[in-house]
Amino acid sequence: MRKSGFFVALALSAAVATPVVAQMDVKDQIETRQSAFTFAGWNMGKIKAQAIDGDVAYNEQQILAAANAIAAVANSGLGALFGPGTAMDKNDNTDLKPEFFDKPDKAREVAIGFAQASNKLQEIAANGGDKAAIAAQFSEVGKSCKACHDEFRAE
Amino acid sequence: MRKSGFFVALALSAAVATPVVAQMDVKDQIETRQSAFTFAGWNMGKIKAQAIDGDVAYNEQQILAAANAIAAVANSGLGALFGPGTAMDKNDNTDLKPEFFDKPDKAREVAIGFAQASNKLQEIAANGGDKAAIAAQFSEVGKSCKACHDEFRAE
Repeated sequence: MRKSGFFVALALSAAVATPVVAQMDVKDQIETRQSAFTFAGWNMGKIKAQAIDGDVAYNEQQILAAANAIAAVANSGLGALFGPGTAMDKNDNTDLKPEFFDKPDKAREVAIGFAQASNKLQEIAANGGDKAAIAAQFSEVGKSCKACHDEFRAE
Repeated sequence: MRKSGFFVALALSAAVATPVVAQMDVKDQIETRQSAFTFAGWNMGKIKAQAIDGDVAYNEQQILAAANAIAAVANSGLGALFGPGTAMDKNDNTDLKPEFFDKPDKAREVAIGFAQASNKLQEIAANGGDKAAIAAQFSEVGKSCKACHDEFRAE
């Protein structure tokens, strides 16, 4: 799925700034964002198995389905699931550091990084990208995950 | 994102039949499929709020992002997360009825129903479908969810 730069900018803006649903309670926000990341991680695992480790046969359609899933998570407006009071200082079931709320510009930067890297992976997969191209961009998506983990996730 | 009929058939086949990653353990399969459905449900909730209930302003880009997310789940190869031994007769943390494994044709039918309904919702959203068209197809996706719940999910 190709997108214009303007469309991407809009989507990214929506991803981090605009409420998309009536505010959920803290518990639901935490569980839903963890579900989103678990689902994305499962799909990252498929690409890793097929394009990096090679322990599952490379299958273009499965790679595309996985890339679509990761991009769908990255563009789903995750910001709505990181509302006030959802960090680890007030909850036992999250590793989100409280300083997340003191660094909105950094939070926005890592969210946009995840979306941009995921959109590019999706674009490469949709255009029949070969294994090497998928592997290279998979690595970029992984870096975008790590950028957020390093900044905002407790050890 | 438009897909040819052949592509859809391939993707649906992959969704229910082909292993996409080395087999996960039972606990991970259950948690990952629940995460996938939680993520899909969150996105269903956004469309409901905007296109049905109207308690959040209708936003085409957010509707498309949500439709992409639901379709990504439906096409992600969920069958790999419903392996042997993952029903409620052997696990406390799932409502999957054991008869799921006695009815592979029915399981395939409901999985394909979910994928087809979700793909159509995605297509309508990608083509700038209006609120009424989105609402109507949202209802079809809901029916496809219910078809599986009625058959395979314990009360």
